[in-house]
Amino acid sequence: MTILTITTDFGNQNGFVGTMKGVIWGIAPDAKIADITHEIPAQDIRTGAITLWRAAAYYPAGSVHVAVIDPGVGTKRRAIAAKLGDQYYVMPDNGLITPMLEDAEVAGLEVRIVHLDKPEYWLPQVYTTFHGRDIFAPVGAHLAAGIPLETLGTVIDDPVRLPLPKPVKTDEGIEGSIVIIDIFGNCSTNVRVSEVPHLESATLFIAGQVIRGILPSYGHAKIGNLVAVTDSEGFIEVAVVNGSAAKTNGIKLDDPVRIRFNA
Amino acid sequence: MTILTITTDFGNQNGFVGTMKGVIWGIAPDAKIADITHEIPAQDIRTGAITLWRAAAYYPAGSVHVAVIDPGVGTKRRAIAAKLGDQYYVMPDNGLITPMLEDAEVAGLEVRIVHLDKPEYWLPQVYTTFHGRDIFAPVGAHLAAGIPLETLGTVIDDPVRLPLPKPVKTDEGIEGSIVIIDIFGNCSTNVRVSEVPHLESATLFIAGQVIRGILPSYGHAKIGNLVAVTDSEGFIEVAVVNGSAAKTNGIKLDDPVRIRFNA
Amino acid sequence: MTILTITTDFGNQNGFVGTMKGVIWGIAPDAKIADITHEIPAQDIRTGAITLWRAAAYYPAGSVHVAVIDPGVGTKRRAIAAKLGDQYYVMPDNGLITPMLEDAEVAGLEVRIVHLDKPEYWLPQVYTTFHGRDIFAPVGAHLAAGIPLETLGTVIDDPVRLPLPKPVKTDEGIEGSIVIIDIFGNCSTNVRVSEVPHLESATLFIAGQVIRGILPSYGHAKIGNLVAVTDSEGFIEVAVVNGSAAKTNGIKLDDPVRIRFNA
Repeated sequence: MTILTITTDFGNQNGFVGTMKGVIWGIAPDAKIADITHEIPAQDIRTGAITLWRAAAYYPAGSVHVAVIDPGVGTKRRAIAAKLGDQYYVMPDNGLITPMLEDAEVAGLEVRIVHLDKPEYWLPQVYTTFHGRDIFAPVGAHLAAGIPLETLGTVIDDPVRLPLPKPVKTDEGIEGSIVIIDIFGNCSTNVRVSEVPHLESATLFIAGQVIRGILPSYGHAKIGNLVAVTDSEGFIEVAVVNGSAAKTNGIKLDDPVRIRFNA
Repeated sequence: MTILTITTDFGNQNGFVGTMKGVIWGIAPDAKIADITHEIPAQDIRTGAITLWRAAAYYPAGSVHVAVIDPGVGTKRRAIAAKLGDQYYVMPDNGLITPMLEDAEVAGLEVRIVHLDKPEYWLPQVYTTFHGRDIFAPVGAHLAAGIPLETLGTVIDDPVRLPLPKPVKTDEGIEGSIVIIDIFGNCSTNVRVSEVPHLESATLFIAGQVIRGILPSYGHAKIGNLVAVTDSEGFIEVAVVNGSAAKTNGIKLDDPVRIRFNA
Repeated sequence: MTILTITTDFGNQNGFVGTMKGVIWGIAPDAKIADITHEIPAQDIRTGAITLWRAAAYYPAGSVHVAVIDPGVGTKRRAIAAKLGDQYYVMPDNGLITPMLEDAEVAGLEVRIVHLDKPEYWLPQVYTTFHGRDIFAPVGAHLAAGIPLETLGTVIDDPVRLPLPKPVKTDEGIEGSIVIIDIFGNCSTNVRVSEVPHLESATLFIAGQVIRGILPSYGHAKIGNLVAVTDSEGFIEVAVVNGSAAKTNGIKLDDPVRIRFNA
């Protein structure tokens, strides 16, 4: 039993992902397949990367994560596969791997990356418009079926990296930014709650608003209030209780979030 | 082989459900997982309950149904698991279980419910904003993997119940209401066709309209007509042939439906 | 292990497809199930047919494809199952089978079709509004579980066929039409690139626009340009690079595409 996940910006309407599953089961008949999402905003590599990074950490060792947000399909951008810690990844070499790679590097985990340059592990006919089906799905399936990573390509050490914004320490505390917004309009930052010494007494400045204190959950505030809470990955999130912080307060990706430590 | 279904209001965009599947397979590697829907209107417990109730009845004995429509996440509301007849359920204790529980009680089936108060069956770290991943998914997976229900929590007999509207007999026939509306705008009532003696001669009054006769299917009426038919669970449904009764006639949840038995 | 796919116009909101999976696993507990799509435009048999045809070709031999785009549900239209080449299909007899059938006939593959007239392979209670659950899912599951095709119904040789438009050779080249438009607004024609002798020197006329040359991929043109490329099935596609040809140029299904061979 090997698990394979798929993350794309293909949407669910046209059967593209359904086609990929046929390819995968043709090569790895025992694979269990889960969709992470196919509604990544079109060509939004960073949102795809962060979404997969949040999900992949919860998968059993040996899982294979195929991700296709691929504005450069059909150009000379490389296709890659990687083992980072105990998880495998198959994706275009356009920065999509960055948060998983950075985490593995910081944690001192195994990092092995190959350039997928062995067409014998792809479909016999590769169309330039659908590498998800013709390259990434079959390579992911071969990994799931037990083919070693280095058999599928040539080792590289220079994958493309996204410039992911990092929080910066300031005189008064720390300054980060909004890095992902979910469908409820909850806006997560790149600042871990563990970086803030006293959550209840911190002050946040975001989009012209001031928020006093970081709460343990939505349930502790009044409906309609703009609050700061701990998100489901341990980062600080700005949210409106039973509402949308993104809509109500016009918060956007990359908006700065200034946090003052009081006490 | 155990089957586990997932029903939520999480949407399909952010990878939340994909994350839950990783957790499930980490605990129950052989589980087969089906999505019922993740598009329950946000925090609409009743629609979630009725949607799951309609689907779960078609699952094999021993299936585990995890449902997370959970406006109270992070507050003191309980988490529960239940065995009702031959199906298992894992969900917040907010009324979501009501239609399945009422059916089991009416049919005299087995009813066992536990309060999930054993953190050793949850993920090691529980965030207050994502119990779907940290509590409900792992508990569902443990059930699927064969852990007995009573091992996962303490038996209770006072689950929260929704006040589900019931049809009432009247002098002229029966009066019910609209309890679920599907994406096509078909509006199902809580009145079973078996409660109406002569379907073809009954008269329905709904939203200022009069419908004469209850048809066996859409195909028996003209396109655009407002009709009453038998829905796919044996209840009376109000529909527009190849159209939307909800949009065209402004029918809403809880609208009364008066039925006169003629003959 | 048998694979079963599901293609419908049911949407993902109401749990209809989740219900079908419960029925399938009740009959074929080992089936692996993939969704092709449930977002076929309502009652659009042709788009459903072409979407399934594109996906099914990538499935392993012996896969069972259940498709329900069924405006005639509850009327006298037949339900059918078929073996075409090495794939199985279960669907209403309304033309949905046409592209798979035509391909099998052209390629000289096995073609066996039965009218599903054996209720003992359906659910015990069949509602007229949900044959997907009550007839198509159980029949597909019985096929997946190894019941022979001819056991499930009576052989027929007159399935309903859609009048799929075919390209026509002209004095200057070939004329086809737009047969499917994806969510990105890419518009695929029914003209195979193999029918055009010199791709780089051909000229396309579509929706009042002139396109010179058929490119190998999107990546070879400028963002915003209207281009002709080879689609992922080997047909000529009209697309706007990083945009929507359907929206920007008002291209619709059935629009004619005139191609002049130059040289």
